[in-house]
Amino acid sequence: MKAIVLLSGGLDSTVCMSVAQQAGYETVPISFDYGQRHFRELACARAVADFYRVKKHVLIETNMRAIGGSALTDDIEVPAGDEQRQDVPVTYVPARNLIFLSYALGLAEVEKAEKIYIGVNAMDYSGYPDCRPEFIQKFQQVADYATKAGIEEKKISLETPLQYLSKAQIVALGMKNGAPLHLTTSCYQGGEEACGVCDSCLLRLKGFREAGFADPIKYKK
Amino acid sequence: MKAIVLLSGGLDSTVCMSVAQQAGYETVPISFDYGQRHFRELACARAVADFYRVKKHVLIETNMRAIGGSALTDDIEVPAGDEQRQDVPVTYVPARNLIFLSYALGLAEVEKAEKIYIGVNAMDYSGYPDCRPEFIQKFQQVADYATKAGIEEKKISLETPLQYLSKAQIVALGMKNGAPLHLTTSCYQGGEEACGVCDSCLLRLKGFREAGFADPIKYKK
Repeated sequence: MKAIVLLSGGLDSTVCMSVAQQAGYETVPISFDYGQRHFRELACARAVADFYRVKKHVLIETNMRAIGGSALTDDIEVPAGDEQRQDVPVTYVPARNLIFLSYALGLAEVEKAEKIYIGVNAMDYSGYPDCRPEFIQKFQQVADYATKAGIEEKKISLETPLQYLSKAQIVALGMKNGAPLHLTTSCYQGGEEACGVCDSCLLRLKGFREAGFADPIKYKK
Repeated sequence: MKAIVLLSGGLDSTVCMSVAQQAGYETVPISFDYGQRHFRELACARAVADFYRVKKHVLIETNMRAIGGSALTDDIEVPAGDEQRQDVPVTYVPARNLIFLSYALGLAEVEKAEKIYIGVNAMDYSGYPDCRPEFIQKFQQVADYATKAGIEEKKISLETPLQYLSKAQIVALGMKNGAPLHLTTSCYQGGEEACGVCDSCLLRLKGFREAGFADPIKYKK
């Protein structure tokens, strides 16, 4: 019984990985080197995969910089976070989750996996359109038509265990599952120590604070 | 008024490109180096893009071999064609069109294009699940939710002008539009001359024959 897990090396995907493991799946993590500024997360993904002693960890390399349009792949400055902001931020990477899920679907078909775990979150989600529950529902529908597995009615289902959790609940779930949160990174800047001021750092710190745990990773300030 | 065109360098995508050009769009072709056996098609895609003097041609490089599961990317032999076959052939690349369309959607968003042209075909389609009209319909739905453009109601629409055409009709349309069919390749083997025996070559030859035109490319036999 296999499950593909989208593993970025960040907090959410690592907690998601712990959920798939707890559910008894043989997990096959998939990670992406897409020209992201914070490529350091790939080393974290590798460390998390090693922690769970997976048999196979798939790394997809792709030059999403050729598409452009994001502070995470272009030479646009990553802004300091603003928790009140309502619009889609410059760190949004056009169609990224759609692209990632599409690869995961292809891998699920080849590996004969029945689940794809993705740590999208509709609560503390930074305003990305492709983290919304409606997006996930629509992807499930296209997945049923996109593959040979779909034709043969061996449905591959998306699992989004973090969908309706707050960041604090995600941290608490990870702690309960013994997820290796000390091996994760969340900072968009990609430095050795987290910046503590970007959107992603702010959300993470708030999550740990509200959950009542100390964040085990290092911050600059 | 811009349109993204998925351009493989094959017959169908080149005819599709000619349709987008005829419709008056400034076209931005996107091509993929995905570890395909027939990478020669990329040179053809470049030649077709040059023929149309496009301002920008995006090449996405990605190691789809890491996913495996196809004769087009793995070291599995490409079989001789069988026009009567009903099942999904080994040349099927898991989730390929879904992956390609996802990139095209991201590019459309960045380029502010209103259309994505893809030369899928439901008639002479080699049995690939991701060429079916149902798949295209479902992708349109996920596209509306996956992007910032979707949130802002600047809908990006898929155009599939070849959907219900026979190969002969595709050839005839290409000839009518003055598409550079002499610059295209269709063979899965990827040799300098087309093999003339794989699925793709058989379909192409049948199309030219039925349309009453000579195929301008070279064949081994």
